[in-house]
Amino acid sequence: MITALAGGVGAARFLRGLLEVREPGDVTAVVNTGDDVVFHGLHVSPDIDTVVYTLAGAVNPETGWGLAGETWAAMDALERYGGLTWFRLGDRDLATHLYRTHRLGEGATISEVTAELARSWGLGLRVLPMSDARVETRLDVEGEGEIAFQDYFVRHRHAVTVKAVHYAGAAEATPAPGVLDAVANASRVVICPSNPVLSIAPILAVPGIEQAVAARREDVVAVSPIVAGAALKGPADRIMAELGVEATVVGVARLYAPFTGTLVIDVADADLAAAVEAEGVRCVVTPTVMHGLPEAAALAETVVSR
Amino acid sequence: MITALAGGVGAARFLRGLLEVREPGDVTAVVNTGDDVVFHGLHVSPDIDTVVYTLAGAVNPETGWGLAGETWAAMDALERYGGLTWFRLGDRDLATHLYRTHRLGEGATISEVTAELARSWGLGLRVLPMSDARVETRLDVEGEGEIAFQDYFVRHRHAVTVKAVHYAGAAEATPAPGVLDAVANASRVVICPSNPVLSIAPILAVPGIEQAVAARREDVVAVSPIVAGAALKGPADRIMAELGVEATVVGVARLYAPFTGTLVIDVADADLAAAVEAEGVRCVVTPTVMHGLPEAAALAETVVSR
Repeated sequence: MITALAGGVGAARFLRGLLEVREPGDVTAVVNTGDDVVFHGLHVSPDIDTVVYTLAGAVNPETGWGLAGETWAAMDALERYGGLTWFRLGDRDLATHLYRTHRLGEGATISEVTAELARSWGLGLRVLPMSDARVETRLDVEGEGEIAFQDYFVRHRHAVTVKAVHYAGAAEATPAPGVLDAVANASRVVICPSNPVLSIAPILAVPGIEQAVAARREDVVAVSPIVAGAALKGPADRIMAELGVEATVVGVARLYAPFTGTLVIDVADADLAAAVEAEGVRCVVTPTVMHGLPEAAALAETVVSR
Repeated sequence: MITALAGGVGAARFLRGLLEVREPGDVTAVVNTGDDVVFHGLHVSPDIDTVVYTLAGAVNPETGWGLAGETWAAMDALERYGGLTWFRLGDRDLATHLYRTHRLGEGATISEVTAELARSWGLGLRVLPMSDARVETRLDVEGEGEIAFQDYFVRHRHAVTVKAVHYAGAAEATPAPGVLDAVANASRVVICPSNPVLSIAPILAVPGIEQAVAARREDVVAVSPIVAGAALKGPADRIMAELGVEATVVGVARLYAPFTGTLVIDVADADLAAAVEAEGVRCVVTPTVMHGLPEAAALAETVVSR
């Protein structure tokens, strides 16, 4: 059994590779919901949807999120009203949010809805939200004060300076059903190549999860999302630096060392392997850039077979 | 100044004719919101949208509601999830509900949102909801008990026997800003050819509106939605009969007599003119079936010039 902590695009690509080398029924993904947002009254779970759409082979291959072949009639029509269209929701993607919102309105939990969505798309792995409670990643940014994740990520296109990040509601949240067991019983706990601050940290901020992962430290393998001092996608490098963490694999090792036994870094960072190990983390050097499914599968095989 | 009480399709067609013969700035429509519904978390106002889309020339001419040239990507995608698709929302129509829901979430009233929608579509008349409070038309139907309006109208296609109708929340509601003034100051108050029980009665159920209309009784002109003993569209005839009201223009006259001075009936019912007048209502006989805009304009001219 493999349990993977996952954010959005990078995690989804890794998981797709993992399902090539392991039975889906042996895989549990615990997904960040800190950037969930209610938009126009609809509950949107960006990371869960990215994971589900990607594993279903339905994701837009150009963006890594949203659906392939999507249409935009609703958003285009919303422009007539001067409505908020900076967070673009495609017509078919809207169906996911309509369904989720309807089910939550009926009293279903995010866990239940997520399982239903995964089943509808024919996925064999288990997809769990980190919590059924609302946890909101919020950022204190220069010149604007505290803003919500999507404000930062989509509206500002993460081009603002972050002074601090916190996970509102995390202290009162509990892990979603199955999360702690999945961590405790896995032969391997994987930390996917996701943003350490904005995707992995919110999961670990739910009381009990970091402790459960740390208890499995010897079997925890993380994949660095930083390659050659830069994030492959998104603002991980910038936000790490802004928060005073070196934006290198060594910085990742330092962040993850309390609960991670092994860090997988890219061959481009081979010269930093010793510095990673100096942080008290075993270091594996392998190609980590997933240009396609073969590279993702090879990376996943390395991660789970170490 | 003309103030018109309006339901959906029939009222919208009449109002389109009215705007051909009167300046839009002189017209106020007070629209039923008793069949508003929250669907998938989105606030849908079917009668307001039908009025707005029709007057904007954007309505689907075949159904009389929804948008012309609509696409259905979201609803088709919702079928994957087994979501509720019996209430079909087109992709561009969804934008209206997204906008309305977003604005309500910001604290705007239905009045404010309705004015914004009408302005966005370039309409010159004033469109008011009957109330900013939630009033829900609910039906006690045989074999099922009490159900919501859209359950009755769309899901059951009004093919169930209605034992009673009530307007939940009406007693605590107040008329939307401008409604009472619009009735008090109009030179003519028009009751559009809408369902007396399901479209007009909810408006009148908001405390103060029926009294305001009754105070203008001499200047109130209603158009019968019943022609030759049948509704032109929808279940008005059936529901009237089920509730013990004769489904004829005489039945309409009886329902409306307390607050209506004049009833306009179709030429097909000319032989019932005397029976209508016996109910204490002046009767005008004229063609009322609006095959197109010219007939609607001629009917409107008759109504406002009497």
